Amino acid sequence: MQEYAADFSAIKAAHQRIEPYIHRTPVMTCTALDDRAGRSLFFKCENFQKVGAFKMRGAANAVMSLPDDVARRGVVTHSSGNFAQALALAAKLRGIEAHIVMPKTAPSVKRNAVAGYGATIHPCEPTLSAREAMATEVVKQTDGTFIHPYNQAEIIAGQGTCALELMSEVPDLDAIIAPIGGGGLMSGTCIAARGIDPGIRLFAAEPAGADDAARSFEANRLIPQTNPNTIADGLLTSLGDLTWPIVRDHLEQIITVSDEMIVDTMRFIWERMKIVIEPSAAVAPAAVLKGSFRKLTGMKRVGVVLSGGNTAPSHIDITDYSATRS
Amino acid sequence: MQEYAADFSAIKAAHQRIEPYIHRTPVMTCTALDDRAGRSLFFKCENFQKVGAFKMRGAANAVMSLPDDVARRGVVTHSSGNFAQALALAAKLRGIEAHIVMPKTAPSVKRNAVAGYGATIHPCEPTLSAREAMATEVVKQTDGTFIHPYNQAEIIAGQGTCALELMSEVPDLDAIIAPIGGGGLMSGTCIAARGIDPGIRLFAAEPAGADDAARSFEANRLIPQTNPNTIADGLLTSLGDLTWPIVRDHLEQIITVSDEMIVDTMRFIWERMKIVIEPSAAVAPAAVLKGSFRKLTGMKRVGVVLSGGNTAPSHIDITDYSATRS
Repeated sequence: MQEYAADFSAIKAAHQRIEPYIHRTPVMTCTALDDRAGRSLFFKCENFQKVGAFKMRGAANAVMSLPDDVARRGVVTHSSGNFAQALALAAKLRGIEAHIVMPKTAPSVKRNAVAGYGATIHPCEPTLSAREAMATEVVKQTDGTFIHPYNQAEIIAGQGTCALELMSEVPDLDAIIAPIGGGGLMSGTCIAARGIDPGIRLFAAEPAGADDAARSFEANRLIPQTNPNTIADGLLTSLGDLTWPIVRDHLEQIITVSDEMIVDTMRFIWERMKIVIEPSAAVAPAAVLKGSFRKLTGMKRVGVVLSGGNTAPSHIDITDYSATRS
Repeated sequence: MQEYAADFSAIKAAHQRIEPYIHRTPVMTCTALDDRAGRSLFFKCENFQKVGAFKMRGAANAVMSLPDDVARRGVVTHSSGNFAQALALAAKLRGIEAHIVMPKTAPSVKRNAVAGYGATIHPCEPTLSAREAMATEVVKQTDGTFIHPYNQAEIIAGQGTCALELMSEVPDLDAIIAPIGGGGLMSGTCIAARGIDPGIRLFAAEPAGADDAARSFEANRLIPQTNPNTIADGLLTSLGDLTWPIVRDHLEQIITVSDEMIVDTMRFIWERMKIVIEPSAAVAPAAVLKGSFRKLTGMKRVGVVLSGGNTAPSHIDITDYSATRS
């Protein structure tokens, strides 16, 4: 059996470790979506997770796994998204320093959220190489521990706790689908789900405009993402060398969806389920509505991970709401 | 003791009657809102109720209370809002006809929703007198039963089941606050809450632009609403002669809020709680954030009814979402 960065026991240990620091998020259902999907869907609502995204699970596991003498020197990462907030909060909960390298171009709302958790922000140029160089520099200065947003054993194990909870609440799922970006959530989901039910079917959903995982899966080798172009801003990154072998070996299929489908699905979920999800979280439900997925047989009950709910305020246009009078 | 249209036993009976037809909605909490309110808030999320609003409770109770021979002739109401959908669905669940008098000006999305439940729509001029005249005419033609959206015993009892569930889940509340329009929800809440805890404090929240309840409460006589002007389009109506005595006798205070506070609060709840609520549902949480309410002492734990989540699709502006790349 191939050795992966995380095994099932690591995920169970992660869950015990992080339970005091995370929300056990609800599983919701929606008849209107079941009708459109042609099967029963069970939505694991990580939009209700702390910091509004599943990223809190991995960040909490990584931070809480550190030995005291290492933790004391703080943690470092580079991220402009949900992982930045998650690591900042996890560090705060442990009472240690977090240093977050963020591109200068990151929206102020994201900077403020990170700063609000007491983290130190290190602004850099908005390129991957600048981010990595700055993070290396900060690690050198602080002697802190670098935590990768997805390509790290503790992160993969932490993200796997989401599927662990989903399957303990809905034990008889035929399949699970989750979004794929760097692969932290998806690889953790694979290990957790197969640990509980070796026969469960596993699918990833990916934006067509950032389809490195689908192309890698097709070519059977890791192909990095270049020039991603999608509204799903949490799924722009490439798979890592730790996440790739897990998804390669466990997934049945990677389903790509257009930005139009992502927006339509996000809107449908806001309107019908009355919950706020971010574009990246609409990718998996969009995939289950796609004809090719609908046609797959033998799957009556499918778990769908809604990965997060952090939309920028400007995208909630309610100031021009005009009352309907009658 | 004064006789009201509904008593506590009617509410308990209503709950037993409608339980198979409604959702037991979740109670949510939000640290960010607790911080702003200066106390612990427990949100009863009727935005997750069937048809997206608490109105389903009263409609289900009214329809399921009818004797078979009466029910067979169908039900009639006039409404352009959530009650239209609620009565249409309740009638469908009982297998009887629903006739809904709706102003011609009602948005097509609302007409489609009502028609989607199999109800017959009777378009009328957009005035209260035209609605009432048309409803009377439809009752005459169909021999159906007129169901009032709020000023009716079964409706009041049905809406009271919301507080019943809230207090059974969170037993040690010091106070409850709910929005007030026609008073169906608020009067049912008063009877239910005092039935469980005679000492509980009760508050209503009302838009400043439709403040007939606050003015009536001040004057100690029913003053009808004229020319309402508020974004909270579910709270435009006047109190009724059945709801008014109940709220008059049980409420401690009616708190009015500006449309600006309503929109700010709606946005805050979307962003932080990740749930979609409609403007009318933001009125009660807006009131608890108001300085005058914050200053009230002796209330550590407050129940807040989030009445519904039906925003028009055009108010969810996500098509121009631009991805943040870095």
